[in-house]
Amino acid sequence: MTEDLTLTITRQINASPQTVWRCLTEPELLVQWFAPKPVEITEVEVDPTPGGIFHIVMKVPEYGEMRGPSGCVLLAESPTRMVWTAALGPGFAPNPPHTNPDDFYMTADMRLEARDGGCFYTATALHATPQAVVAHEKMGFYDGWGTTAGQLAELAEHYQDSP
Amino acid sequence: MTEDLTLTITRQINASPQTVWRCLTEPELLVQWFAPKPVEITEVEVDPTPGGIFHIVMKVPEYGEMRGPSGCVLLAESPTRMVWTAALGPGFAPNPPHTNPDDFYMTADMRLEARDGGCFYTATALHATPQAVVAHEKMGFYDGWGTTAGQLAELAEHYQDSP
Repeated sequence: MTEDLTLTITRQINASPQTVWRCLTEPELLVQWFAPKPVEITEVEVDPTPGGIFHIVMKVPEYGEMRGPSGCVLLAESPTRMVWTAALGPGFAPNPPHTNPDDFYMTADMRLEARDGGCFYTATALHATPQAVVAHEKMGFYDGWGTTAGQLAELAEHYQDSP
Repeated sequence: MTEDLTLTITRQINASPQTVWRCLTEPELLVQWFAPKPVEITEVEVDPTPGGIFHIVMKVPEYGEMRGPSGCVLLAESPTRMVWTAALGPGFAPNPPHTNPDDFYMTADMRLEARDGGCFYTATALHATPQAVVAHEKMGFYDGWGTTAGQLAELAEHYQDSP
């Protein structure tokens, strides 16, 4: 299979990979950037170790709470790569199939490279089917992940300045 | 959630964890025990590293080939623990949802402990739903995994004697 089932955004961040890593893995930092405002995060739990929980609940204005089963951390290689998936829960147990055929599980692969005195951030969403890629694009992947990458950069740069 | 969605078998094997580990991860050994005879394995590919492929095709007499999407290795901690899942493919990409609601994805968690001069083998299948647990039991989990654990023991013990 050579078909590309991924969506990717990149961003240069003026902070060290170590600082960005903390923003990816520490709940009190993650909560500040991971949802595109005005979406809010109401619950967050992250255990950055393979098999650990990755749990986020978002509250979308005029829609309500987006709550799925908890996800699972797959790789946590500080400060270069964090991978988690919604298809599995804590301890690598599979999550239940969706009842709505438009829903999909994705895996997020986030890579950090030291570059130009800062950090080059690459976030890739991996999907199972071309339909899921299209659905994710229509949900506003580029806007949403672009906005959150900007929020991540702002947070990491602020944090870098005042450790 | 406290519900148990796992099925487990255990077996004491008179071989070292290192030898059993090789049987779990080397294709030319895996092919000899992983399917309960007279089921045959016609294709096997394993890359024992997180994100690596776990691919097995079986041929069942009077039924034919059982071919699903390739699975993904999640943990490969020689010689103590190997975890792979059918819910993800190589590189941690989610696998497509099943079209048949009776089908299910599982994760296999295999643990090896040095004990009594040999290896205590624990194989656990993790499921997403109680329905999947029941379906797996009805497919003959205990017979099937019991038979393959016996085949694994026989292979590892033979291999141990003639390194």
